[in-house]
Amino acid sequence: MHSSPIAVFQTDNAPALVARLQAAIGTSNVLTEDSDLAPYLTEGRNLFKGSAVAAVRPGNTGEVAAIITIAREFGVPVVAQGGNTGLVGGGVPFGGIVLSLNRMNRILDIDAVNLTMTVEAGCVLQTIQEAAEAQDLLFPLSLGSEGSCTAGGNLATNAGGTAVLRYGNTRELALGLEVVMADGRTWNGLNRLRKDNTGYDLRNLFIGAEGTLGIITAAVLKLFPKPKSTATAWVGCRSAQDALVLFNRFRRGAGDTLTAFEFMPHLVLEFVLKHAADAVMPLGEAHARYALIELSSPDGTLDLGASMETLLGEAYEADLIQDATIAANESQAKALWYLRERMSDTQSKEGGSIKHDVSVPVSKVADFLDQASAACEAEMPGIRVVAFGHFGDGNIHFNLSQPIGMDKAAYLKKWEHFNRIVHDIVAGMGGSISAEHGIGLIKRDELALYKDPVALDIMRSIKQALDPDGLLNPGKVLPDKT
Amino acid sequence: MHSSPIAVFQTDNAPALVARLQAAIGTSNVLTEDSDLAPYLTEGRNLFKGSAVAAVRPGNTGEVAAIITIAREFGVPVVAQGGNTGLVGGGVPFGGIVLSLNRMNRILDIDAVNLTMTVEAGCVLQTIQEAAEAQDLLFPLSLGSEGSCTAGGNLATNAGGTAVLRYGNTRELALGLEVVMADGRTWNGLNRLRKDNTGYDLRNLFIGAEGTLGIITAAVLKLFPKPKSTATAWVGCRSAQDALVLFNRFRRGAGDTLTAFEFMPHLVLEFVLKHAADAVMPLGEAHARYALIELSSPDGTLDLGASMETLLGEAYEADLIQDATIAANESQAKALWYLRERMSDTQSKEGGSIKHDVSVPVSKVADFLDQASAACEAEMPGIRVVAFGHFGDGNIHFNLSQPIGMDKAAYLKKWEHFNRIVHDIVAGMGGSISAEHGIGLIKRDELALYKDPVALDIMRSIKQALDPDGLLNPGKVLPDKT
Repeated sequence: MHSSPIAVFQTDNAPALVARLQAAIGTSNVLTEDSDLAPYLTEGRNLFKGSAVAAVRPGNTGEVAAIITIAREFGVPVVAQGGNTGLVGGGVPFGGIVLSLNRMNRILDIDAVNLTMTVEAGCVLQTIQEAAEAQDLLFPLSLGSEGSCTAGGNLATNAGGTAVLRYGNTRELALGLEVVMADGRTWNGLNRLRKDNTGYDLRNLFIGAEGTLGIITAAVLKLFPKPKSTATAWVGCRSAQDALVLFNRFRRGAGDTLTAFEFMPHLVLEFVLKHAADAVMPLGEAHARYALIELSSPDGTLDLGASMETLLGEAYEADLIQDATIAANESQAKALWYLRERMSDTQSKEGGSIKHDVSVPVSKVADFLDQASAACEAEMPGIRVVAFGHFGDGNIHFNLSQPIGMDKAAYLKKWEHFNRIVHDIVAGMGGSISAEHGIGLIKRDELALYKDPVALDIMRSIKQALDPDGLLNPGKVLPDKT
Repeated sequence: MHSSPIAVFQTDNAPALVARLQAAIGTSNVLTEDSDLAPYLTEGRNLFKGSAVAAVRPGNTGEVAAIITIAREFGVPVVAQGGNTGLVGGGVPFGGIVLSLNRMNRILDIDAVNLTMTVEAGCVLQTIQEAAEAQDLLFPLSLGSEGSCTAGGNLATNAGGTAVLRYGNTRELALGLEVVMADGRTWNGLNRLRKDNTGYDLRNLFIGAEGTLGIITAAVLKLFPKPKSTATAWVGCRSAQDALVLFNRFRRGAGDTLTAFEFMPHLVLEFVLKHAADAVMPLGEAHARYALIELSSPDGTLDLGASMETLLGEAYEADLIQDATIAANESQAKALWYLRERMSDTQSKEGGSIKHDVSVPVSKVADFLDQASAACEAEMPGIRVVAFGHFGDGNIHFNLSQPIGMDKAAYLKKWEHFNRIVHDIVAGMGGSISAEHGIGLIKRDELALYKDPVALDIMRSIKQALDPDGLLNPGKVLPDKT
């Protein structure tokens, strides 16, 4: 466990603060016992142990505003939390109040003609997906933690996932927001419009700000027609370079029906086959690299299987791929996706893993994979490159499993060392050191190394303008000024 | 012509200012003669007459930064201008410096695999469209002024147009920006990434800010595979309500191949047929309402004509439409689009026109058309409702042509009166008083009436943080604090 990298905020007047909070939102919604607080003080990878005077569970926007007003009065920080599934420590409190949105989990409106759903911030992603499905519609955001992550957390971190290629990041899936500001006032921006040019784009400022500029309490999300025809294929090829040419052919030939293009080397599939009981080898023999390709469309009359066959046939003729299987039915498609879904967790059975969530221009993704793999393998012979992910977005989860037999702790001490190697290559290609996980605490100091200094100063000016007392999620995202 | 609604900034030391500007960017790029300045001081609708000490024409980003630094030193305002095709007076200077980006018109990079184009801000939209086309790609932004408007202006106003339904507003078409800030520093945010979660979303803050927060000098734009199959139809129906049901069927049935759904009443077609020499009546007889529908896809193997026929056949069976024609070839499709393109300018032949650029949730667009039309017709018998546009985005150009024979000037004096009637109905439906034209000067005071006061305060805080001396396009967008 990392020691707390930011100073714990000390509250002089905790009993009075708790009393005020209890009066505002009810005693049962102000948790102060260690056992009640515990789940709010850590995160999934168990890297940090936080602390808080209280965890508060407001039931509506007015109560969120009341909590912020009390926090201002006492001068204590507030950290907002949704499903607490973040991967960068952004939701861990270090003193003050942790504000859970989980009770605010209602769907407020579905407009099946406008193709929008209005939800409270604590609404769980899977609930949103299912409510869309019930209207024969699609909310396309999809990620591993969808059973517990919330709309507010997805928005605060601008979550990515497997459907970004066609539908965009969470940012692109929101039309409007309601936000409680650091001054305790509420911005009602629950806009349901496809076009609105009345002043600055405030929505996108709060999306991805990880709770440092305001607390998102509700949102209007975009829905889409539900796909009615789908074709899913698993493809074996020789190299990332060939996969890139293949991707380009699909992007141009299949257009918007191309809804996923995921990539993995054989080692990742091997880990899945070894550690996931139900996993089945999808092709007759092993290939160096694989792609999982999905075409889908709401137009049920389209024969996407034929499009898939044509494009794969041409690729086979051109020797870009050496084998492929097209799912014959939904359960076969599910079996292929199952392999993809188990790629993250099965790695943990192979010892220490040093992780990077990076992106480069799509045209550089094969070069990145080649260069970064070679650099890491040269640095530590035996290291196992476990690089997979959203190839079509230029987003690779470039993870490094430890050499077999090496001491795990000794290996993990090299985390920053490998960060530097990988992130320098990413930066040299105009890439990002955080494609979809955010900055939080883990990447805050890394940001200082790679972000344009003018951009950092603009960010600081905006933080100062909207949260002058630094009450909202202090110490996260913004690196200290050097 | 409106008198200047904001005070003209007086410069005490104009000769010294001009000398400094000449030294920085060359004498020939600093225009001070009345005849040279004239084109930079007015706008298309001729509503305002501006003034400036000088019009400056920098050749690169460094020169833009130098100009801003000089302007700061002299304490004079700077108004950025692209093609000067805006419709809300946003680019008109009232004293100080007008900064034209027109010399900065280079395409810096095209990445046909990453599907991006990097351009200087003064690059003309049509040049960008043609450069994409030459790579067998599409830059989808398309609007009436595309022969002279520029990327920088499109971004500063978040321009809309006819392709928003499928491709989004200009905001959705940009990945990265380069911006010269009010302090003279340059933010290099020329990001070419599909996914990047490293801090606040600065890009979207400058897009749509109409030059009040920084000066956009370059941008990375998204490209798309070029459509290879297209089907275009003109449909006659009885009402906006029927058109909405039709739209919903197309949105669900045709999915992403639905790239346009434009709407107009018969009167608008009548104006076009009367005033545009080459216009041809598309159907055998007149109908109360029409829709122009386009399906397109980069997948050339798709038979979109068949999809169009199926969807229209079903609509005919359901008595939603009474007639339709599907273009048999490209020239027929062009003839249908020509009718749409001439809808704005042909109105001017029918006397005074009071204009509104509004949006509502798509599910309310038919209700809006019905209610607003009835309200205006009741208010002034004989007024002619000329309401047309981007139905599928909920965006209507709700224009009102004067009663036949009425005095034009007397009619135009009712502009604010009809604004109130129409905008109140829009606001009641959760709509926007500026869907795609921006705020500029014309709608600035209107914004104070309809925008959430917390949103206005957040906007003011951001303006204060990024341009504390108010040098960038002063008096635009933000209403005075009351």
